Amino acid sequence: MNNHPNPALGNISTPAAVIDLDRMRRNVQRMQSKVSALGVRFRPHVKTSKCLEVTRVQMEAGATGITVSTLKEAEQFFAAGITDILYAVGMAPGKLGQAHALIRRGCDLKILTDSVASANAIAAYGRDHGVTFNVLIEIDTDDHRSGIKPESAELIEVGRALAQPGGRIAGVMTHAGSSYDLNTPQALQAMAEAERAGCVRAADRLRAAGYACDMVSVGSTPTALSATNEDGVTEIRAGVYVFFDLVMHNVGVCALSDIALSVLTTVIGHQREKGWAIVDAGWMAMSRDRGTQRQSNDFGYGQVCDAGGTPIPGYSISGANQEHGIVSRTGTPDPDIAARFPVGTLLRILPNHACATGAQFPEYHVVSAGGQAATWPRFYGW
Amino acid sequence: MNNHPNPALGNISTPAAVIDLDRMRRNVQRMQSKVSALGVRFRPHVKTSKCLEVTRVQMEAGATGITVSTLKEAEQFFAAGITDILYAVGMAPGKLGQAHALIRRGCDLKILTDSVASANAIAAYGRDHGVTFNVLIEIDTDDHRSGIKPESAELIEVGRALAQPGGRIAGVMTHAGSSYDLNTPQALQAMAEAERAGCVRAADRLRAAGYACDMVSVGSTPTALSATNEDGVTEIRAGVYVFFDLVMHNVGVCALSDIALSVLTTVIGHQREKGWAIVDAGWMAMSRDRGTQRQSNDFGYGQVCDAGGTPIPGYSISGANQEHGIVSRTGTPDPDIAARFPVGTLLRILPNHACATGAQFPEYHVVSAGGQAATWPRFYGW
Repeated sequence: MNNHPNPALGNISTPAAVIDLDRMRRNVQRMQSKVSALGVRFRPHVKTSKCLEVTRVQMEAGATGITVSTLKEAEQFFAAGITDILYAVGMAPGKLGQAHALIRRGCDLKILTDSVASANAIAAYGRDHGVTFNVLIEIDTDDHRSGIKPESAELIEVGRALAQPGGRIAGVMTHAGSSYDLNTPQALQAMAEAERAGCVRAADRLRAAGYACDMVSVGSTPTALSATNEDGVTEIRAGVYVFFDLVMHNVGVCALSDIALSVLTTVIGHQREKGWAIVDAGWMAMSRDRGTQRQSNDFGYGQVCDAGGTPIPGYSISGANQEHGIVSRTGTPDPDIAARFPVGTLLRILPNHACATGAQFPEYHVVSAGGQAATWPRFYGW
Repeated sequence: MNNHPNPALGNISTPAAVIDLDRMRRNVQRMQSKVSALGVRFRPHVKTSKCLEVTRVQMEAGATGITVSTLKEAEQFFAAGITDILYAVGMAPGKLGQAHALIRRGCDLKILTDSVASANAIAAYGRDHGVTFNVLIEIDTDDHRSGIKPESAELIEVGRALAQPGGRIAGVMTHAGSSYDLNTPQALQAMAEAERAGCVRAADRLRAAGYACDMVSVGSTPTALSATNEDGVTEIRAGVYVFFDLVMHNVGVCALSDIALSVLTTVIGHQREKGWAIVDAGWMAMSRDRGTQRQSNDFGYGQVCDAGGTPIPGYSISGANQEHGIVSRTGTPDPDIAARFPVGTLLRILPNHACATGAQFPEYHVVSAGGQAATWPRFYGW
C-alpha cells in the first residue's frame, strides 16, 4: 500500500477533507466541454463546494455565472467579485430585504418563485422599496419537489403576478433532481430531454401569453452529462460534478477514479473478532448521508481507499457514530483486519454525497500529483 | 396558531437553530439531580452543543469536568477555563503532540485507549517527550463499538503497556451506546446495570493485577437516566440530554415538550395536489440523520411545530434536499396544506438527533418564556 504518496498528507490532522486537484480540474473541464458543445452557457452550482478557490477554477474554465442555494453564498461570492448569481431556492418573503441589499450593491441577483403568493410578495416588496426583482419561475419537469407544471394554468398566473411593477420575469428554470434515482444512459438521456422540453414549453407558453422569458435554465449533474440536445435552453446548471461522489458513480456518470473529494482518516482501534477497524471519521466527518443505500451498490458511509486514494475493493465504512467509523469487509469479516490496517494507518474515504460531506469541514486540504498542497477555506451557515 | 410567541423569532433569518432556554435548564437540572442522587460525579459530554454558554449552564448546575469527542473541543473549552477534560475517543498516535501541548499548558487531559498497540504508542511518546499521560482504558460493555471486554486477557495486557514510563492508568470508561436501541424502562435499567457491572469488573481486575484504577466512568443519556445503583462507579457521562431529541423521545427518556433544540424555518412554496408545503430547512439544516427511521415512531427529518414550539400532530418533514424540506401529513395528504401553512409561515422543527442538527449551525438563537433572546456561538471542525 502506497501509504504516503503525498508528504503533505502526513501532516494533516484527521479527519480532514482532501481535494485531489488533478481530478477536480478534469471534472471541471469535462463538464464545461460538454456544456459548451451543447451550445449553451454554464452556471455551476456552488453549494457543493462553498469555496471561492473551487469556484474560481470553474469560472476560469468558462462558467458565466453561478447558482447558489443560500443568500449567504450569494453574499460571499459577490464580495469576491462574482456578480451574475442565481439564487435557486424559492424566495421566502422575509429574505427580500437581504436580496435587495445585494442588488443595491450591484449584484445581478436572480431570485425564484413557484407560486402566486410568493410572486405577489416579491412584487409588493419591489414596489414598496423601489426595486425591480429579476425573477425566474421554477418549473417542475420531473415531479420530484418544487415548481409549476409546464402546462399548468398557474404558470400564467405567476407570470401575471411577476409582471406587476416591482417584479420582472427573468426566465424559467428547472432541476430534474430525480435523475439521481436513475442508472442507465437511456433513462438519463430521456430525463435530460424531459427537463429541456418541459422548461422550453413553459417559456413558450409565457411568451405566447405576452411575457418576455429570456432565460431557460435547466440542469443537474446526471442530465447535464447525458443531454444530446438543448434547443431552446440558454444555460445549464450542475453542482456535484466538480467533486463527484459514490451516488454519482452508482448513477453511472463517473468512475471511482474521478471522485475528487475524500476524507483522510486514521485507524484508532480494532474489534478483531468482528473484523472491524475503528477510524476517526464518523458521521461528523462523513455526514449522515446514506445516498447509496437505495442504489445498486451500497457503500455504507463511504468507500475505503489507501492514503494515495486507490480504492481497496470490498472495504467500506459500515457503521458510524459521531467520531467513530467502523471499517469492515463486505461479506465475510476480515480476520486480519488489525494487521491490514494497524493503529495509526492513514486511509482515505470516498463519500456518498460530496455536498453533504464537504459541509462538515471548515476547509479543504488540496493535493495534486505534483505534490503541491494548499488549504482552501469553505464557509457554512446561512 | 401562536405564530410569534417570541418577538425575537421574527427577526431571525431562517433556517436557524433555536434553543428553548427554559427547557434546556430543566434538562440540565434533571440530569444533575439524578446523578447527584446516585452519589457520583457528573461529566457532561459537550460534543452535543460545542458551545461554551451551554456548557457553563451544565458546570454551574454541578458538573465537575467535561467529556469531549475531539481535541478541538478540548482546546476550546480549556481556553475558556475548564481544565478537567476527558477525550473519550481512542487516541490516534498522530494526535499525541496536540494532547501534549494541552497538558503542557496545564490542562488535566485524560486520553483513551483500547489496544496494546495504542497504549504502547502513548507510553513511547510520553517517554520520548518527558510527559506522563493519564489514560483510561475503554471497556466494551454492550458489544456495540470500541473497547475491551471486561473479562478479556487483553485488558491486563493494556494495563501493563500503560504502566510503562510515559503512561499511567487513570481508570476505565464505558459507553453503552446501544441503549439508544431500547425503549422500555426495564431494558434501559438492565443496560445501565450491565454498563456499571462491566466497568466495575474491569476496574477490579486491573486492581487485582496490581494496577491503580481511580476513575470508573460510565454513561449515556438513556442509561444515566435509568440507573438505580452506581456502586463502584465514580462518574457518569451523558451528552444529548441537554437538548434531548426525537430519538430520545422514542427511547422513552423525554417528552416532546422536553426537547430544547429546534430549527426555525419558513414556508417557501407548496405542491397542493401532493399535500406538501416546502420549507427552507432541508438536510443542510436538519442534518441527514434519520435516527427515528428504525424506531417505533418515524418522524422523517423532524416533527413540525408551530412557531411557539408546540407540536402539530401528524406533520413531519417527510423528505429533504439540501435547502428544501417537504412538510406533509402522515397518512392521507392534507388538501388544505397551502391554507394551513401559507408562504412565509414560520415553523419550528424538532430534530431526530440534536448532536447532528446542532452541528449544521454556526450559532444558536436562545429564547425563553421571559422573552429574552441571545445568540450563542458554536464551533465545528477538528
